[in-house]
Amino acid sequence: MADVEADKLVISDDENHPANLIPSLCAKFWTLGWVTGTGGGCSIRNDDLVYIAPSGVQKELLKPLDLYVLSLSAQNTPERTYLRAPPRYKPSQCTPLFLAAFTRRGAGCCIHTHSQWAVLVTLLLEQQQQTQQQGNARVFEINNIEQIKGFGRGFQKTGNLGYHDTLRIPVIENTPHEEDLTEYLEAAMEEYPDTYAVLVRRHGVYVWGDNVHKAKTQCESLDYLFQLAVEMKKLGIPWISDIARIAPDRT
Amino acid sequence: MADVEADKLVISDDENHPANLIPSLCAKFWTLGWVTGTGGGCSIRNDDLVYIAPSGVQKELLKPLDLYVLSLSAQNTPERTYLRAPPRYKPSQCTPLFLAAFTRRGAGCCIHTHSQWAVLVTLLLEQQQQTQQQGNARVFEINNIEQIKGFGRGFQKTGNLGYHDTLRIPVIENTPHEEDLTEYLEAAMEEYPDTYAVLVRRHGVYVWGDNVHKAKTQCESLDYLFQLAVEMKKLGIPWISDIARIAPDRT
Amino acid sequence: MADVEADKLVISDDENHPANLIPSLCAKFWTLGWVTGTGGGCSIRNDDLVYIAPSGVQKELLKPLDLYVLSLSAQNTPERTYLRAPPRYKPSQCTPLFLAAFTRRGAGCCIHTHSQWAVLVTLLLEQQQQTQQQGNARVFEINNIEQIKGFGRGFQKTGNLGYHDTLRIPVIENTPHEEDLTEYLEAAMEEYPDTYAVLVRRHGVYVWGDNVHKAKTQCESLDYLFQLAVEMKKLGIPWISDIARIAPDRT
Amino acid sequence: MADVEADKLVISDDENHPANLIPSLCAKFWTLGWVTGTGGGCSIRNDDLVYIAPSGVQKELLKPLDLYVLSLSAQNTPERTYLRAPPRYKPSQCTPLFLAAFTRRGAGCCIHTHSQWAVLVTLLLEQQQQTQQQGNARVFEINNIEQIKGFGRGFQKTGNLGYHDTLRIPVIENTPHEEDLTEYLEAAMEEYPDTYAVLVRRHGVYVWGDNVHKAKTQCESLDYLFQLAVEMKKLGIPWISDIARIAPDRT
Repeated sequence: MADVEADKLVISDDENHPANLIPSLCAKFWTLGWVTGTGGGCSIRNDDLVYIAPSGVQKELLKPLDLYVLSLSAQNTPERTYLRAPPRYKPSQCTPLFLAAFTRRGAGCCIHTHSQWAVLVTLLLEQQQQTQQQGNARVFEINNIEQIKGFGRGFQKTGNLGYHDTLRIPVIENTPHEEDLTEYLEAAMEEYPDTYAVLVRRHGVYVWGDNVHKAKTQCESLDYLFQLAVEMKKLGIPWISDIARIAPDRT
Repeated sequence: MADVEADKLVISDDENHPANLIPSLCAKFWTLGWVTGTGGGCSIRNDDLVYIAPSGVQKELLKPLDLYVLSLSAQNTPERTYLRAPPRYKPSQCTPLFLAAFTRRGAGCCIHTHSQWAVLVTLLLEQQQQTQQQGNARVFEINNIEQIKGFGRGFQKTGNLGYHDTLRIPVIENTPHEEDLTEYLEAAMEEYPDTYAVLVRRHGVYVWGDNVHKAKTQCESLDYLFQLAVEMKKLGIPWISDIARIAPDRT
Repeated sequence: MADVEADKLVISDDENHPANLIPSLCAKFWTLGWVTGTGGGCSIRNDDLVYIAPSGVQKELLKPLDLYVLSLSAQNTPERTYLRAPPRYKPSQCTPLFLAAFTRRGAGCCIHTHSQWAVLVTLLLEQQQQTQQQGNARVFEINNIEQIKGFGRGFQKTGNLGYHDTLRIPVIENTPHEEDLTEYLEAAMEEYPDTYAVLVRRHGVYVWGDNVHKAKTQCESLDYLFQLAVEMKKLGIPWISDIARIAPDRT
Repeated sequence: MADVEADKLVISDDENHPANLIPSLCAKFWTLGWVTGTGGGCSIRNDDLVYIAPSGVQKELLKPLDLYVLSLSAQNTPERTYLRAPPRYKPSQCTPLFLAAFTRRGAGCCIHTHSQWAVLVTLLLEQQQQTQQQGNARVFEINNIEQIKGFGRGFQKTGNLGYHDTLRIPVIENTPHEEDLTEYLEAAMEEYPDTYAVLVRRHGVYVWGDNVHKAKTQCESLDYLFQLAVEMKKLGIPWISDIARIAPDRT
């Protein structure tokens, strides 16, 4: 399959071509600690074409010729067919999870990180439920932080969340095999139709967006909030506050 | 508006031209975690011309051709007129806040960060007032730290703060719409005429200076102090101390 | 010894040649805080040839011509013979430890870091045994974290650890002279035949792998887990949990 | 003074020339958080010539033509004469402190950082003395950490500290004017003749070495130990331990 014709799918002079964007994004994500030790990844959809990094590569060294390309419309055929495959790699176990964001939410890009801040937030929720018998370990909630405005209001809605809105990110339990997360991820999408992210306990987070720009900036904003939430916990500051402010809400 | 003539306002071979400085500064700020997920920004004033980044861009990818240029003297006309606008963006909601620093303090540059250290300092002040019924949540104060000398003594004053001086940064409450912060920012400038920065609760900080060099180094020094203050809090060390030292004060 | 013929052993246009990889890896490790102040290092084995950085160099400045090359099969001769030596350096004290990984585990690459996270983990284990009279200060254990899957199942075994598997890294006591660690490192390899790493109390960690890719990604994953473990400790979250999950285990 | 002839003192094609090294080192130090907001600095001595950065510059932007050059032997003349001065800057207030390291310890390079870890260590020592009535706030002591071996044994001594040796760094009180620290720095050098560094309370640290390599790697090792010490304090682990180990001490 890795023939000359198929390779054209990942060769472009345009720095904004998905085959060039994925390596440059992954290199950036490596410096942020999101894709340490081959963990995590990133996939971009361009109409029907899905570009995706292989399994087990060092993300800061990724090259366009390392990428898989598959057809979204053909992905439910018994044997998922790759339009282009790199010669020496295996497909990523994240593939069905990325595809869920593309097919169920029309996402244009999906990012998976192993950020420690994401993992710590899921551990803190678990701890809170176990030790204090309070709270819900299955959803991360935070409000009254400006960075919340970095998120879209939800699926097929226009505009972004407001400062006083509560951002809610569902948490699913991890499974031994990453592929097996798919059904739980999809269920979380059903339960929280407006979310752009799903946390995976003791594992990391999946974040998507309508396009690369939105997926990347939402992922950054979320990681910012996770880190802030961990620091708030260390300092004894609650994630949810009820600031009763009446401020002019102009639109 | 994005015509060839107007574009000349943002095209220059000089690396110190505002249209080149804003992108290079923003890229640096991104690595510092100040402008995560399109948050934060930077504006430079050159005499009557104000250069400003658009709303919602990835700051580490900013290009000179993305910038707005407006005339400071014309900014109070009913419809603020841009001398140059990029084709596909919207003006930043920070614009009136940057302009306040330019018109009321004669600043040459204003930086807005979402630094987590700034946010945590405002949260700690809030917590201190709520739980201990002490302190003033509306001003951050620190003294007897060398880095305080990184700040000018105040508006139209010469020289810098001394080691034993107390640095005071007012804190205003956040509003749902960033533009609505303007009146509170201006009120804080009135109440603390010598401050070069205003913290915004649960949001970040605005820092300015007479020129790019001063705005940038004051912003760095302040972020340093915010981070130090958070670590001091974790270790139980108070921000204000009364070291009664009599040291030779040569000028 | 540093003659023209021997220098050819470290001169190559191939960026994946060991003499080029060691400097680029060490520069990367420096930014990660693993080889601060000339501490730590990295060695690569290519069949019988072993490439190794000298003692006491700034790792981010390392050049191919700074490297030693020795023959693995000749390394037990009374006087270890270097096939190539840089003119002005001394061999690294880590040499016998790197060789232990090559000869006893068939490793292709071995990395030694002074990562603070590794040091803190060994201190926490020591503290736990001293103050709580519980736990075993001689082994670091963690389970139910996704990043554990970044490790091979063990020496001459295929496949990687699973999410629910417990990762065990033995800890040896530090010695005044690094060379003297060799016998303890080898003993730990005997006691934990499947480990790919050995922690050294108050010192750092040695991590190896069948090849450069595996050693580097295992070292990254381990450092990630050490950092996470320290943060978990600060937040009161135990490293070992018993999540009794029955998830489909497809292979 | 900034004439063509004098400028030759700072123009060289050799990347290891002091006039090139100081900018490249300062840029690196900026990324490490050592010279934030124009704080801190670095000076190199080459025989009788001393190269030194000016006051108040952004250290990551420093250029060779920004540097001062002065003669060490002429520095005690009533008016210190600069062999070369940049046109628009002022000499650094750190100058007499750097010179103290050159004249009293024969150092070839001296680095001054505002590292937060250094500042926090001095604050913790102060706190310990005030609240627990124990310990000596005027000296930082740590032992049984491998990185201690990164320090020379002392002035005019050969060899490095050992793993079990206690590293002692004296702490002096800060003064409103940096120049006024000189006498206290010199007194600390007298009291601790073997130290390669002096901490300045609530300010930072001065570190030197026989040459650039040693000053830089000792400064890195020390910052590593300061950071480790702060984290140890957060986790309740003492800086001094008495591990009675009898390990073979081969020399």
